[in-house]
Formats: sequence, structure tokens, C-alpha cells
Amino acid sequence: MYLTQEKVAVMGAAGAIGSNIVQDLLSTKTACRIAMYDPFAQGLEGAAEEIYHCAYPGAEVSWTADVKEALTGADYVISSGGAPRKEGMTREDLLKGNCEIARGLGEDIKRYAPNAKFVVVIFNPADITGLTTLVYSGLAPGRVSTLAALDSTRLQTKLAQHFGVPQERVTGCRTYGGHGEQMAVFEDGIVVDGVPFAEIMAGKQVNGKSLSAEEWQEVQTHIRQGGARIIKLRGRSSYQSPSHQSVEMLAAFIRGGGYPWPCGAYIPDGEFGHVMMAADVEFTPEGLKPAIPKGSEKDLEALKVSYGHIVKLRDEVIAAGSLPPVSEWPRFNPHLK
Amino acid sequence: MYLTQEKVAVMGAAGAIGSNIVQDLLSTKTACRIAMYDPFAQGLEGAAEEIYHCAYPGAEVSWTADVKEALTGADYVISSGGAPRKEGMTREDLLKGNCEIARGLGEDIKRYAPNAKFVVVIFNPADITGLTTLVYSGLAPGRVSTLAALDSTRLQTKLAQHFGVPQERVTGCRTYGGHGEQMAVFEDGIVVDGVPFAEIMAGKQVNGKSLSAEEWQEVQTHIRQGGARIIKLRGRSSYQSPSHQSVEMLAAFIRGGGYPWPCGAYIPDGEFGHVMMAADVEFTPEGLKPAIPKGSEKDLEALKVSYGHIVKLRDEVIAAGSLPPVSEWPRFNPHLK
Repeated sequence: MYLTQEKVAVMGAAGAIGSNIVQDLLSTKTACRIAMYDPFAQGLEGAAEEIYHCAYPGAEVSWTADVKEALTGADYVISSGGAPRKEGMTREDLLKGNCEIARGLGEDIKRYAPNAKFVVVIFNPADITGLTTLVYSGLAPGRVSTLAALDSTRLQTKLAQHFGVPQERVTGCRTYGGHGEQMAVFEDGIVVDGVPFAEIMAGKQVNGKSLSAEEWQEVQTHIRQGGARIIKLRGRSSYQSPSHQSVEMLAAFIRGGGYPWPCGAYIPDGEFGHVMMAADVEFTPEGLKPAIPKGSEKDLEALKVSYGHIVKLRDEVIAAGSLPPVSEWPRFNPHLK
Repeated sequence: MYLTQEKVAVMGAAGAIGSNIVQDLLSTKTACRIAMYDPFAQGLEGAAEEIYHCAYPGAEVSWTADVKEALTGADYVISSGGAPRKEGMTREDLLKGNCEIARGLGEDIKRYAPNAKFVVVIFNPADITGLTTLVYSGLAPGRVSTLAALDSTRLQTKLAQHFGVPQERVTGCRTYGGHGEQMAVFEDGIVVDGVPFAEIMAGKQVNGKSLSAEEWQEVQTHIRQGGARIIKLRGRSSYQSPSHQSVEMLAAFIRGGGYPWPCGAYIPDGEFGHVMMAADVEFTPEGLKPAIPKGSEKDLEALKVSYGHIVKLRDEVIAAGSLPPVSEWPRFNPHLK
């Protein structure tokens, strides 16, 4: 009845994202054996009680403020266990504190869940927290990913709204590299209601509407500020879309594919090496296999800029001592040589 | 792919319950054509954007602060559109304000969605807001219901915790009549891990644990304060369980059954007449057919007490002018003669 009977540990499960993940794992029939973990035991108990009162058939949900108990035997881990972003903060403001949390998560996974098959990290800035988790976890790189879809789904949403077409009629929206201000928005491959993006840029109308170069810039600005906009509108950071998309990532891992959005992936070497960034991936039983996104020269130029931003952030974290220098990563995680 | 393509209007969709309902309708694949309504347009837009960023395949979700637009053509309505309960408040404290909201909802349904097939009201106190909605909506009584499951799922949860058995091994938990302090907890029919409740009360152990009369009283006190307890633990009123259970009610209506919990139903006459209360129901295409719950003499005695409480509340609302006197209901709703 559920896609898997294996154990899923949800870290940060007292929070809005974490408790939503648990509900969504059950409502989408993805998983039913769930360990809810949060250091805030009182709120965690409340969140667990809510899930019990949902009375999902066959659910086996436990809660604990003991990280060892939560992670021991976990086949899958989804962690939203960072501090939330407040109005006015950039993702980067969260860097230091959340990296320390990611380091702890990685060390705990190494200690208690060394056989975890797939870990999804969704606290900001996810490229860096995911990388930090990976380094300290000792897991194979393909087994640690980060939620990277929301920039792309926000682009799809905004283009659909601009042209007044159903969201599904906008395909090929892909943003790669980092998130937020420094994401690389790929133009190549976008199709709106059957019309390739290059034709739209050349003036072709869709559903009676055109998209000028200026409007396209506005669309990009809009999605770069997508997270901040939710905070402004709702008075709280987004929680429904990150949780649902991370559940979809886990479901895709279990099914062996079928996830249509970019995922955070560790790039081992080459031009974009030694970072975790939004990339194309193939879901395999051994983990995600990353591929450098294909796009126009302009797109790849944007990706290089975005990569540079991630490297800068990564090196800040290294300088701050939350992450060892790249050359020392293999000491912590032999897979990263 | 979704259980229905018909239109579902979710009222109060900017709130925690309402926005969770929309997500759960989609995640459970119950419905995809959803109109989100809330008078608070800014928060509503934020909630709708979150749903768009989830990128559910085939979803057709709109949002509007215009109640006419939301309800016109709606086949189903789920309303969480009341004021939330704050710490220390009883459900009854909410009575007056929420009854005025329910009256407005009923009048709007009469005006814009007179062909609605099924309406679920989930704002407190639901017995009274559901009744008020029914009277003013003009709909057949079986087409308006209220969420009534949570007391029963809380009882199931608590008994499972007491005996240390999986939640599913506790069956037959049913609370009827009103909610909160005045619910009628039925003992007849409860079975814990195969052992009927009467045997447990006679001293039989389950999983090495007994349940004394005093402990049983404590269990009941615990569930009577179930809603207040969530507020205490989480710092907010419950939203995940009410939304999931109301989605399950709608799914059951569409499927024609399969919902295992009591539902709020209008009782037209007899000993328990002229109220809406938690009862047994049969799901039919014409709406819910209520049945007076079966139980021991003691259980039915408790139901009478609970009924008396609902009647008292109802009469307070009538005295306050939010609801016409019972004798005048047929003028507002010809089905209620």
C-alpha cells in the first residue's frame, strides 16, 4: 500500500516543514515507517500526536528527541532541521549556524545510519548544508542530495501566469548551480504551450501574449526573490512546497526515477568540481548520478558564474572552520577523493 | 489520476488548515480542480503560490478573495473559515463569531453553489457551525456534514499508547454527540488487540497491561482535552489532523463509503432531533444518511447528556439571533421540515 516499508527518519519534525513532510509521506503513500526527530521534544510530541490523529492505515510513526534512536536503522533521511529564514534575511545569513547543524547531521549519520540509502537536505543554504552533511557523513556522494526544485517550479509558475496558460503547459524550466540571487536560469529547453523559448524571445506570441527582454528580466528577478516573496505574503517562510518536493525526491529514489526537476548533486571534479549544486541527475539504486546540465553558451556562462558563487560560499565555510579544506575531505569521507 | 475532476472550493484557504487541505487533496490524489478562497488576499496568494511551487501534475488551482467566484460551480465545499482557537479558549468561546461566519457561508452556498453535492464544515464548535451552515444553505441535510473524527482518533491513539500496541490494533473507538467536554465516549465496540473492552474493564490484560476504572477516566479526560493539549504542546491549534480527516471525508463521499469514523449529521427528528451531531452515517450519492449510534445503555445515556449540551448551545445561538428558531427553519431550508 505504501511505496516502501523501510524506515524514514525526518529530522526537524517539530517544525512546519518537518511535520508537513511526515504528513505528505503518508498522504502520498510514499512511506509509513517514520521516525520523527527534533531536539524540541514538546513541539515534536504535538506534531506526532497530530499525525496519530490523522489515523493513517498501517502507519508506524514514532517520535524521539534522541538522535541515535531516530537514525539507527534509517534507510532514508530527510532533514529540514535548520533555523528558518526570517523576513529580510538572505539564505547566506543562515550560513554559519546551519552549517554547524549540517556538520552534526553528517556526523550523526556516520555514527548511527552509515547504511542510509538516500539523504535529502533541505535547509538553507542547501548547497552548502548538503555538501557539509555529505563530507561528514562518509556516505557515497550520490546518496546525499538537496532540494533544488523550487527555483524551477517557481519559474514554471511565473511563466504560466505571464502567458495565462496552465502550469503544465510550461515545460523545460530548469535553474542550476546555486539558489536565490545566484542561480543560473537556463533558457534553452523552455517551451511555453508548444512554443520554444528562442521563438518567444524573437517576438512570437503565446496565447496572445509576448515576453519582452525586459519582462524576462523581471520574471527572473521575481523567481530569484521567490523565497522572500512567500515570507512577505504569508508572514512565514515556505514550508509546503519544500516538503512536498522533498517527498517527491524520495519517492523517485525508491521508484528509480520519474522526478522531473533538478536535484542537488555533488560534482566530483572537472570545471564544476568539489561542490554540491543543482544539476541533472539519474536516479540509480546506488544513488544519484549527476550530469552537467546541457544548455546554450549563454546558459553555461551563467552556470559558471553561479558555480563561482557556490565556491565562494564553500570557501567561507572552510575559512570559518565548519568544513575542512577540500584537500582533506577524503580523510572525513573516503568517497571524496 | 485524481479521484475527481469536479470543483472543490476550499474556504479559509490562507490559513494553516485550509492550505493544508489543498495540499492534502492533491497529495492524496483526491481532487485537482480547487478554488482557494479567503478574505485575506495577501496570505491567500502566498498559500496558492506554495501549491503552485509543489507542481502537482494536472492541478488546476485558482485563488480568489471573491466568494462568488470561489463558490460558483463548486461541487464540493470544505470550510475551515472560522477564527482559530487560542490557548485557554474553549470551543464554546468561539461560538458567536464563528456562527456568524457559518451563516454567511450558508447564505453564500445558497446563492452561488445551490447544487453543491457535499459540504464539510470544520470550524468550531462544528456541531453548531455545521447546523447553521445547513439551515442557511438550503441544501438537503445529508449534503452538509462536519468533521467529527478527531475525538475518536484521539481515543484510538491514547488507548494504543496505554497498552503499547500499534494504533491499528485498537478498533471501534467512537465518540458521538458533541465534541470536547461533552462528547459521549462509547465503550461498546472498543476492541484492543482482539480483546473486547468489557473484558478489559473486567480486569483482563492486553500486552501485559490492564486498564483500571480510574485510568479509563483519565484516558477520557485526556481526549476531552485533546484539542487544548495540541495547543499546549505546539503553541498552535491542530491543523494537520482536521485537514487530513476532512479530505478523507470528501474522498469517501466521492467513492461512496469507506470512511471508518463518525461524521457530523443532521438528525431530523426523534429523541435526538433538530441538531447536527457526531453520528453513524452511510455515504450515498444523495448525501449522508445518519443513524443513531448503537451502544450499551450507559453509552446511550451519555449520548443523551451530550445531546442536551448541543441543544443548549443551539438555543443560545438562536437566542443570540444567529440562527432562527427551530420552527422557522423550513422557511430558510425547505428540507428541514
